[in-house]
Amino acid sequence: MGYTSGSMDKLREPLAMTSQCGLPVALEAMGERWSFMILRAAFNGVRHFEDFLEALGIARNILSNRLSRLVEAGILKREHCEDDRRRIEYRLTERGYDLLPAMLALRQWGEKWELGVPSDPVLCDAHDGKPIGPIAILAHDGRVIDCHDLTWRTRADVDADAARQAARPSAVA
Amino acid sequence: MGYTSGSMDKLREPLAMTSQCGLPVALEAMGERWSFMILRAAFNGVRHFEDFLEALGIARNILSNRLSRLVEAGILKREHCEDDRRRIEYRLTERGYDLLPAMLALRQWGEKWELGVPSDPVLCDAHDGKPIGPIAILAHDGRVIDCHDLTWRTRADVDADAARQAARPSAVA
Repeated sequence: MGYTSGSMDKLREPLAMTSQCGLPVALEAMGERWSFMILRAAFNGVRHFEDFLEALGIARNILSNRLSRLVEAGILKREHCEDDRRRIEYRLTERGYDLLPAMLALRQWGEKWELGVPSDPVLCDAHDGKPIGPIAILAHDGRVIDCHDLTWRTRADVDADAARQAARPSAVA
Repeated sequence: MGYTSGSMDKLREPLAMTSQCGLPVALEAMGERWSFMILRAAFNGVRHFEDFLEALGIARNILSNRLSRLVEAGILKREHCEDDRRRIEYRLTERGYDLLPAMLALRQWGEKWELGVPSDPVLCDAHDGKPIGPIAILAHDGRVIDCHDLTWRTRADVDADAARQAARPSAVA
């Protein structure tokens, strides 16, 4: 279709704007050291204040502050424990769970470039017990895309293509 | 194979340790606002000091400081420009390019949960011009795994399984 490979420098994002990019918000939620450690513990199934305290070796007031911030950001939710209504649980929201691919991508980057040793324990597919694969950039049909084979297109162009394809489904090979 | 689905709370990472986790290092490189904006510009093909300055609306001394830090971290490299040896270029290293899946995962999270509108321009596969898919957690065979279908296993168990399979390749369906 004539997209020149690797030509990310013709069309560009508005680079000076952070308001139209979701990344800063995500980094705010994860970028602070204790928030990140709390999130990692939450992904590991930790739910109670005292368990976070013990697992992380964090000061009580810092834990309390960071949990509140993560609840405010909609990443954790505060709920009464089902089997003991007096206890409070902190659980990941759907929005919180959705941070996992980003966390794992950063984690794999660190394993590859910083640690030089594979981590133990290993994060595995519960279905077959095998280690998960690398987090990759995928095409619409699931092909892994090399980072040099990306290009920017205007939303108008992308939408026009989709409309054209929808109008002539038989022309698609 | 009998892995209970979603049971991330039996075997756990050592949660109090950050030294064995690569994530903090990755966040240090990306977590600071200006560093992130410089990286985003670099992924968009910006290479020269004056171009970063103009594209980002950043102060000269901050840009200089952050570029040095990213070079020290091995994420950018400082090189003489090929067609004008007096000019200096800042280019992403292989290690730097490897941060792209994490950046895109965070970006997609922000688009989905914060902005509520699809971004424009759209990042597309240069091969077919279609928008890239969501960054997902993949099994070893490329299946997309739900975040609730993950489990921790010890490296010893994973290695033992791999050795057993290698010894009996015909037994694999």
